Amino acid sequence: VKREDRLVEKIRTLAGRAPGLVLGPGDDAAIVSRAAGLLAATTDMLVEGVDFLPGEDPERLGRRAAAVNLSDLAAMGAEPEFFLLSIALPATTSEEVPLEIARGAMARAARHGGALAGGDLSAAPLLVLSIAFWGRPAGDPLTRSGASPGDLVYVSGHPGEAAAGLRLARLIEAFRADGSDASRIPELSAEDQRRLLSAYHDPEPRVELGTFLSRERLATAAIDVSDGLGIDAGRLSRASGVRLTLEKDRLPVSQTLAAFAALEEIDPVELAIGGGDDYELLFTVREADSPRLSDHGHRFGVPLRVIGRVSQGEGAVLADPLGERDIAAIGHDHFETAR
Amino acid sequence: VKREDRLVEKIRTLAGRAPGLVLGPGDDAAIVSRAAGLLAATTDMLVEGVDFLPGEDPERLGRRAAAVNLSDLAAMGAEPEFFLLSIALPATTSEEVPLEIARGAMARAARHGGALAGGDLSAAPLLVLSIAFWGRPAGDPLTRSGASPGDLVYVSGHPGEAAAGLRLARLIEAFRADGSDASRIPELSAEDQRRLLSAYHDPEPRVELGTFLSRERLATAAIDVSDGLGIDAGRLSRASGVRLTLEKDRLPVSQTLAAFAALEEIDPVELAIGGGDDYELLFTVREADSPRLSDHGHRFGVPLRVIGRVSQGEGAVLADPLGERDIAAIGHDHFETAR
Repeated sequence: VKREDRLVEKIRTLAGRAPGLVLGPGDDAAIVSRAAGLLAATTDMLVEGVDFLPGEDPERLGRRAAAVNLSDLAAMGAEPEFFLLSIALPATTSEEVPLEIARGAMARAARHGGALAGGDLSAAPLLVLSIAFWGRPAGDPLTRSGASPGDLVYVSGHPGEAAAGLRLARLIEAFRADGSDASRIPELSAEDQRRLLSAYHDPEPRVELGTFLSRERLATAAIDVSDGLGIDAGRLSRASGVRLTLEKDRLPVSQTLAAFAALEEIDPVELAIGGGDDYELLFTVREADSPRLSDHGHRFGVPLRVIGRVSQGEGAVLADPLGERDIAAIGHDHFETAR
Repeated sequence: VKREDRLVEKIRTLAGRAPGLVLGPGDDAAIVSRAAGLLAATTDMLVEGVDFLPGEDPERLGRRAAAVNLSDLAAMGAEPEFFLLSIALPATTSEEVPLEIARGAMARAARHGGALAGGDLSAAPLLVLSIAFWGRPAGDPLTRSGASPGDLVYVSGHPGEAAAGLRLARLIEAFRADGSDASRIPELSAEDQRRLLSAYHDPEPRVELGTFLSRERLATAAIDVSDGLGIDAGRLSRASGVRLTLEKDRLPVSQTLAAFAALEEIDPVELAIGGGDDYELLFTVREADSPRLSDHGHRFGVPLRVIGRVSQGEGAVLADPLGERDIAAIGHDHFETAR
């Protein structure tokens, strides 16, 4: 029995037997039984040194890979069903690494009703993960294209904290390389450090929020904030053929983010606009529906905040008392730069 | 507009509008409308330098990536529906490369009724492709686990030609590096060279054969020969809890394969058993159903050959007049070795 087959066997044991899964990992394809209706499908690939830091904890990496895909389903208002997990890694890597990755991905998916159906193991000079996840829209699918002039622009959570977490992780890494005590960043409490690192390493996909918005037909458009509030607001504006104006002083800057930004001597808003990796939802709501959303906002364990408004025109801008600034191109282009 | 978004827009234009596709590339997830029933889903990742040679023609590479996944669906007897395509590549690579890859994958998929639904673009230090493909079993899904003692073992096409094609491609590459005329391998006709190279670079997935076997309930078990007849026969035997005995003199060794093997001074059967990359179907059929299959064999544009038999026991062996040899571990372990 080859190493690949032995690993598939172990992953199959981990996966157990999910409802609807007729045939799980270990054959040429997975077989799932499925009722009629819409299917939402997404995929994301994570590459070592580009989308995650070398030496990342494999179980956490698996959770994050699942979360990135779950976030896409959340942005469509879809309930997760099944996923396929591909892992390519150097032949010298311990067998525990792919197992821990699978374990993490399954745990994160299970929390939102998703299960592993199958996957692929392959060799590569560096670690690469790819997940394809599918699910079922809870109501009408949320798309990027339905925003209308007059709608309010909402965002969940605290965009910018993940980007701060990545910078902090690198800072700690540099301290370690220097032989310094990594935990000694006196300007930032241990609790603040944990919060930022966790926002980057272990984002919480907004599946319950997204499916609620879809089921209740509350959002006219939605996108997940994966590359920065700026670039993603630009995408939503372009798909909808409208203009998004975000108000700088309405952006949800947490005390933690403000403390980190002070340490780095940057404007915390820059991290929110251009940071990326947040996996929060940016969505638009008819003003008349806003009270209905407020009634339920507490259910999602995350603040929902009105940060701007939709108008006729094009583009995405950040407004402050001094004027407006184009932000539609500010953020991370996965395809252009390794971070 | 970022480079990533510009490319997605171009791919969206290429993809057009497939029946059942409610929302194609360009949003957070694809949306497909689907009737009730079974769904077969598979995924394969291809890594530069491991699963394909650097400098591979991108359109052909796209065709091959689609074919590898289509072959998995074929082995389940599933009709292809939609696929997701992820491409990670160096920032310095021309935009034409991902476009050509997408074009090739779409062309290969379309031939078998499959269409692009979405995907992901990412940066990486080397080219990585991942496809997730789903479809619908034409009848009962073909699995690896249904073979019974007494069944005949069939294989389609000419396993070993793809492995010969890969060796030939490397040989030609070495000639080129030497400054020699690459086409001067007098022992092998230009037509033979084309045939072997095409078997490696551009395999034809046996989708019509697989769906026929599923629809007509003709195969008791099936697997696609991706890693070598030996290892894949071993997998089928293990999943079914039976023994597979392949007859050495029944293996379909083409004149082309024999000519190449003579050139390399190896036994052509070794290429068939251990080569991999064939994407032919290895399947088992009740002896009583064999005539029914023979009546239709001509329909698939590929020879179908009885190469052995299923018996009680375990393992996969190759029999010749001198005895039996264990072949269940002979082949390519994607996870262990870069080829």
